[in-house]
Amino acid sequence: MAQQARIGVTGLAVMGRNLARNFARHGHPVAVHNRTVSRTRDLVAQYGDEGVFLPAETAEQFVASLERPRRLVVMVKAGQPTDEVIEEFAPLLDRGDMIVDGGNAHFADTRRREASLRERGIHFVGTGISGGEEGALHGPSIMPGGSAESYAALGPLLEDIAAKVDGVPCCTHVGPDGAGHFVKMVHNGIEYADMQLIGEAYDLLRHVGGQKPGEIAEVFRTWNGGRLESYLVEITAEVLAHTDAATGRPFVDVVQDQAEQKGTGRWTVQIALDLGVPVSGIAEAVFARSLSGHADLRAAVRGMPGPGETWLDSAAHDRFADDVEQALYASKIVAYAQGFHQIQAGSAEYGWSIEPGAMATIWRGGCIIRARFLDRIRAAYESRPDLPTLLADDYFAEALGGAQDSWRRVVSTAAQLGVPVPGFSAALAYYDGLRAERLPAALIQGQRDFFGAHTYRRVDREGSFHTMWGEDRREVEA
Amino acid sequence: MAQQARIGVTGLAVMGRNLARNFARHGHPVAVHNRTVSRTRDLVAQYGDEGVFLPAETAEQFVASLERPRRLVVMVKAGQPTDEVIEEFAPLLDRGDMIVDGGNAHFADTRRREASLRERGIHFVGTGISGGEEGALHGPSIMPGGSAESYAALGPLLEDIAAKVDGVPCCTHVGPDGAGHFVKMVHNGIEYADMQLIGEAYDLLRHVGGQKPGEIAEVFRTWNGGRLESYLVEITAEVLAHTDAATGRPFVDVVQDQAEQKGTGRWTVQIALDLGVPVSGIAEAVFARSLSGHADLRAAVRGMPGPGETWLDSAAHDRFADDVEQALYASKIVAYAQGFHQIQAGSAEYGWSIEPGAMATIWRGGCIIRARFLDRIRAAYESRPDLPTLLADDYFAEALGGAQDSWRRVVSTAAQLGVPVPGFSAALAYYDGLRAERLPAALIQGQRDFFGAHTYRRVDREGSFHTMWGEDRREVEA
Repeated sequence: MAQQARIGVTGLAVMGRNLARNFARHGHPVAVHNRTVSRTRDLVAQYGDEGVFLPAETAEQFVASLERPRRLVVMVKAGQPTDEVIEEFAPLLDRGDMIVDGGNAHFADTRRREASLRERGIHFVGTGISGGEEGALHGPSIMPGGSAESYAALGPLLEDIAAKVDGVPCCTHVGPDGAGHFVKMVHNGIEYADMQLIGEAYDLLRHVGGQKPGEIAEVFRTWNGGRLESYLVEITAEVLAHTDAATGRPFVDVVQDQAEQKGTGRWTVQIALDLGVPVSGIAEAVFARSLSGHADLRAAVRGMPGPGETWLDSAAHDRFADDVEQALYASKIVAYAQGFHQIQAGSAEYGWSIEPGAMATIWRGGCIIRARFLDRIRAAYESRPDLPTLLADDYFAEALGGAQDSWRRVVSTAAQLGVPVPGFSAALAYYDGLRAERLPAALIQGQRDFFGAHTYRRVDREGSFHTMWGEDRREVEA
Repeated sequence: MAQQARIGVTGLAVMGRNLARNFARHGHPVAVHNRTVSRTRDLVAQYGDEGVFLPAETAEQFVASLERPRRLVVMVKAGQPTDEVIEEFAPLLDRGDMIVDGGNAHFADTRRREASLRERGIHFVGTGISGGEEGALHGPSIMPGGSAESYAALGPLLEDIAAKVDGVPCCTHVGPDGAGHFVKMVHNGIEYADMQLIGEAYDLLRHVGGQKPGEIAEVFRTWNGGRLESYLVEITAEVLAHTDAATGRPFVDVVQDQAEQKGTGRWTVQIALDLGVPVSGIAEAVFARSLSGHADLRAAVRGMPGPGETWLDSAAHDRFADDVEQALYASKIVAYAQGFHQIQAGSAEYGWSIEPGAMATIWRGGCIIRARFLDRIRAAYESRPDLPTLLADDYFAEALGGAQDSWRRVVSTAAQLGVPVPGFSAALAYYDGLRAERLPAALIQGQRDFFGAHTYRRVDREGSFHTMWGEDRREVEA
């Protein structure tokens, strides 16, 4: 009998190719398949010495080359192409086989596919994979959903190729059906927020602090030696330090300032709205990107008057970078708190029993938002698994308390000097909103009762009430 | 032959009942029908002297009592109930008849229903109706979608019962299929933002200005005599002036500060995200309501440290109410600019050819956001129909320029003193973001290219580029 593969990868664009190589490099014979056969041949020709690759030219051949239960990883575009590949392979599989979708599918699609394949006896494992091309090859963060049974068969392989932090693999069973893709979506939403906050910090250092990109690169490098240590802060320093060869100008100044996006940030906010979770930091990040892309609106408004003052005095200037570091850290805590709130709300809504601390653990390495910080989140949920919000954890509460004077000065200064900080200010408003003794929501309830008889509750008695606003204004129980 | 009705209303809960009475009071014989027959009888018994009501006990009787082409207004709950009523009546109708859905349907449902009924030769007219119970009776703002042909037959009746401002009815043909419900949705999103901004103004006057609810009611009353004149400001003064009879305390202090919502605000933000329109002011309003409702998180965070100072000095105090008025007006301009941007984007996406100025015109009366302000928006689009954003209109640009010092002081003060102003600060960040010469979006594009090879554009040449970050950092054309 010919050698069989422990796992197979179909779809050999860069992510699929690198994932297959990662399996092979870890000693797992891997079947490889691609609709365009030349890609399969190229992979084997170029990287065949890295391990055991079993190239397949047809779907049948591919399936036949897999050990049972078969583990088949699909690395194609999310949406219609995923459904097509599923329909191509599912009829060739047996009960107990597994299809792993490693693309960026919407978790609702994953739930639908999982339910439909479950009826056919096939495990469908929607799996978030973060870390880009490099991560796929050298160790990504892996977020598999699907059944516990499928994880028993798949987990050891995935953990093997995942990034490791302190010897712990950045892969764990997230929860049933769409849980993996849900968590990957929120991961990306947090990534949007993190990038926006870093962007605001840079913008402030540049336009308030008056520093040049190269100098700001040094500031980020210093920050990366402290509590902000993270992949995103690290590459920010690299990008800011880079000089454009063609013009000799700072690279960041020759790049068009219109940010693009692919959709997972938007999904995060849309789903958060369905779940009733305020993710204002993530939303502002998504909006900031779309705002930057509206060249027509920007052209129409550019040059509208700003404030007279746009520079700090020297005393304020000296402490400004430190203030911005504090504001960035505090705002980052809020963005992550919002994302973890969403994970807990999604888990409750869909009965996934996701452990938030385990998510922080597998994000410590491999993925775009990997950071020292995540170990603090892991520790927070370890010491208190039922933590209602990260803000209430002792470490984070203390960090926020310590940062808040700086944070307030930064938001206040940005407002006064005309630098847009939607992320910093949304985060601060969230903090001040949650800790407020009373919110003007009471007035909103009064307005709603006035114009729509929507009723309100009282602070001193149970029940729903309505005031007869249009008549004698007596209160009736609704 | 028995007398026939010019129009019929099925679904006689308070909105349907009041709408039927409004038709009758305007001299239009109206057929009335309700699944529970007693409600039909009660209506005729109680209000029969207001005009000609033709009560029907069965669907067949109801349809038979309508002039042709039949105009049948459905006033039932959005969602499944609407589909059920459509399926009950459609088989009884003839080609050219009209079903008007006056509920708060999602515009995507309206598009689906319109397409399906169009195939059966029936006009489906998804119609936004704003103004609550009182509006329905005395003159609402009406936003009908559907075909131009149906508007020719329906428009005169709807315009007859709509609110009037300067003799102009608050009703016009919005555009095809789901355009009416889309515009109503955005109307509600703007309403959320408006209410949140008013709430923040109140909160600032209370907790920074140190004023009591009764005093703040007076402030709102004064504002209502100026450029902020609007229904929402008017009723805010009423709510704040009201004393709770049971306790003798200000009414707003006995209402639980957890705001509720029904979904149209959430839809607005979700659809804006799909359209790539930054509606941060509306989003913050939706989030502020959901935040207020998370009693568990609030309990966990309440009492976390705020800033030391929470009071203004007397000089700042004296001008504070004026500053807040300016901040409220400026933020309101931004919220409306975002909403109108969404209307224009939706219109472009679905080919609706909506005239934004006409929407401002029909919102001047009847609806919850009716305001003097809307006449300014009407004028802005009248003088420049292709206005890319309201912020670029001369009047609004001047208002923003005049308000900005105060606006910045208010946002800055709130940040320093720990009062949450998510709406004010999101609006200011939007203004500063749009007018910025350069945005940190350039850095974000650099980060994306670094970790995901997503490419970027340059300011000085056409094309897409990628820097080989992991290698020698030369730039390649992508």
